[in-house]
Amino acid sequence: MKIAVLPGDGIGTEIVAEAVKVLQVLDLPLEMEQAPVGGAAYELHGHPLPDSTLNLAKAADAILFGAVGDWKYDKLDRPLRPEQAILGLRKHLGLFANFRPAICYEQLVGASSLKPELVAGLDILIIRELTGDIYFGQPRGRRTAVDGLFPGADEAFDTMRYSRPEIERIAHVAFQAARQRGRKVTSVDKANVLETFQFWKDVVTEVHAQYPDVELQHMYVDNAAMQLVKSPKSFDVVVTGNMFGDILSDEASMLTGSIGMLPSASLNDRKQGLYEPSHGSAPDIAGKGIANPLATILSAAMMLRFSLQAPEAADRIESAVKSVLAAGYRTPDIWSEGTQKVGTREMGDAVVAAI
Amino acid sequence: MKIAVLPGDGIGTEIVAEAVKVLQVLDLPLEMEQAPVGGAAYELHGHPLPDSTLNLAKAADAILFGAVGDWKYDKLDRPLRPEQAILGLRKHLGLFANFRPAICYEQLVGASSLKPELVAGLDILIIRELTGDIYFGQPRGRRTAVDGLFPGADEAFDTMRYSRPEIERIAHVAFQAARQRGRKVTSVDKANVLETFQFWKDVVTEVHAQYPDVELQHMYVDNAAMQLVKSPKSFDVVVTGNMFGDILSDEASMLTGSIGMLPSASLNDRKQGLYEPSHGSAPDIAGKGIANPLATILSAAMMLRFSLQAPEAADRIESAVKSVLAAGYRTPDIWSEGTQKVGTREMGDAVVAAI
Ligand SMILES: CC(C)[C@H](C(=O)O)[C@@H](O)C(=O)O
Ligand SMILES: CC(C)[C@H](C(=O)O)[C@@H](O)C(=O)O
Repeated sequence: MKIAVLPGDGIGTEIVAEAVKVLQVLDLPLEMEQAPVGGAAYELHGHPLPDSTLNLAKAADAILFGAVGDWKYDKLDRPLRPEQAILGLRKHLGLFANFRPAICYEQLVGASSLKPELVAGLDILIIRELTGDIYFGQPRGRRTAVDGLFPGADEAFDTMRYSRPEIERIAHVAFQAARQRGRKVTSVDKANVLETFQFWKDVVTEVHAQYPDVELQHMYVDNAAMQLVKSPKSFDVVVTGNMFGDILSDEASMLTGSIGMLPSASLNDRKQGLYEPSHGSAPDIAGKGIANPLATILSAAMMLRFSLQAPEAADRIESAVKSVLAAGYRTPDIWSEGTQKVGTREMGDAVVAAI
Repeated sequence: MKIAVLPGDGIGTEIVAEAVKVLQVLDLPLEMEQAPVGGAAYELHGHPLPDSTLNLAKAADAILFGAVGDWKYDKLDRPLRPEQAILGLRKHLGLFANFRPAICYEQLVGASSLKPELVAGLDILIIRELTGDIYFGQPRGRRTAVDGLFPGADEAFDTMRYSRPEIERIAHVAFQAARQRGRKVTSVDKANVLETFQFWKDVVTEVHAQYPDVELQHMYVDNAAMQLVKSPKSFDVVVTGNMFGDILSDEASMLTGSIGMLPSASLNDRKQGLYEPSHGSAPDIAGKGIANPLATILSAAMMLRFSLQAPEAADRIESAVKSVLAAGYRTPDIWSEGTQKVGTREMGDAVVAAI
């Protein structure tokens, strides 16, 4: 089984190293090959997603991804900026289904901005469509307005769009995921304003006919942003488009207070997947050895389960993470009085030891 | 000074009646005329925004609006649904600047989902552009895809767009508002993905040159959704587009835990304005006499200040609201042990008495 290892920028190198270490002790036939991505690749090859890296990713069964981005690349032209690598990988590999669990670990309830009773036991799964919507819709660009409020003025524009098969396949993913969990799907739209999301709502409703055992609820995106704050535990699986999913999945992960713990998976229809932590490259703490590697280690567990057909190995990692938390190990982002502060490497070592 | 009074649906009638009562005791030369809007107008005239209502609104100096919407209109064609009235009023009156304060009242800190220390003293102002973006952009509709991932499939699409003057005028509104407050503006965009919001960021940066005394920060919308949860008090004025503003302003108001207290204003370039509570029509509690009228009463205060040049009268209302809270009056949505539960009408009476 081939894994492309793409550490990227900022804390990416440090956290991916720990996940690799954990994978290595599992005694599985894994072939890992590393390549630069994002700013690191731009420095070496003049492009955030060089062909060599893209080809490695395409040929792999799964990609273990760190994080990309740093302020120093802010002035580059958009096509050269680090985040284009992640958009390019999604597009070229067809990674349309993004899984973003928002789980609040028992021992970390206190780290949340929310009152403990609202987040204790929280376990929601946000499924974000990842290759359509306004992210990739054409046409887009700048032009002179010919109509609208200020004809003749300069304007910029983008196209939001979803086709029926794109909505159908992500809806199936959501209903099937719900069957493994609480059997409830909340489809988030803005059907009261957008043609795209009226269509989304219609198609999700049609697909739902094949899943009579799963409850379907429709919710407007503004209301969803509110209900996540008001009663996060009322959700089970949330499915939505690329743009709304970007916003809501980040909001949901921050509710837990421990985004440093949250993995993610992005899959295509062949179950090839990209696995990365939900958090970013955190250039402010890069190189200090204090980043939390657990989100990346848990992403490796998702990889074993979803792309590499090794569910027992995934279970072993997840149990090990629970036991290091129970033993009181904490990186600074999740540290609290009475627990033991450790660095990135010590945390990785603790997980290895627990395995 | 002419006020168009549009109560609308659900709790709209009840809460607007209290705001009208409060306006009447102020002894100002106000001419108020009432008209149906939303579902109520559909029942009477077959349209959520009949010409008679629109003309009344156009001729007024300000509009006092309740709320629209009810589940029973969900099956109507989109152009006939209640929320089209609010979109129509924004468009026909050019109400491009939406002010959505998110304030956490001292006595109501406990009602928030967030820990008290995170919201005590919270006072942020979200300024949402209200007549552009993907809400009104053409073309939009359904068609057969000619390119994209599934050529030949049915698809739906919308157009996001902003022109330079639209961005300039809302940026000026935000910088000017910041001068009356904490002198900091956070402009929320998605410049890493969208052409429209790269342009937004560029134009806001240009306009900022005229306001060297105000600090400007740029933030991606996904990060903004997180930071609102993590450290809401780090914001002063937030300015963003119509779609992101819809989501973030609702998220921000829910952080306070007392959305029943939050007013809003939507202004055009002649300072004509529509004033409405931030919450919706709440059909589940309509007619029960328990809705909180304070958001609507505070919207009337904003109306006096922004559109009717009566800042002292606005102050009187706002002080009265503070004093009824201090006296312990609470509608059920903000009630807690040790305070006195009152209904919609009693709350209105208490404000009148305090004035
Ligand atoms: C970096 C950016 C393009 C990306 C996105 O918007 O999808 C990121 O926010 C994410 O959620 O992975
Ligand atoms: C009802 C709907 C069209 C409206 C909007 O999306 O603008 C509402 O959510 C609001 O924020 O006033």
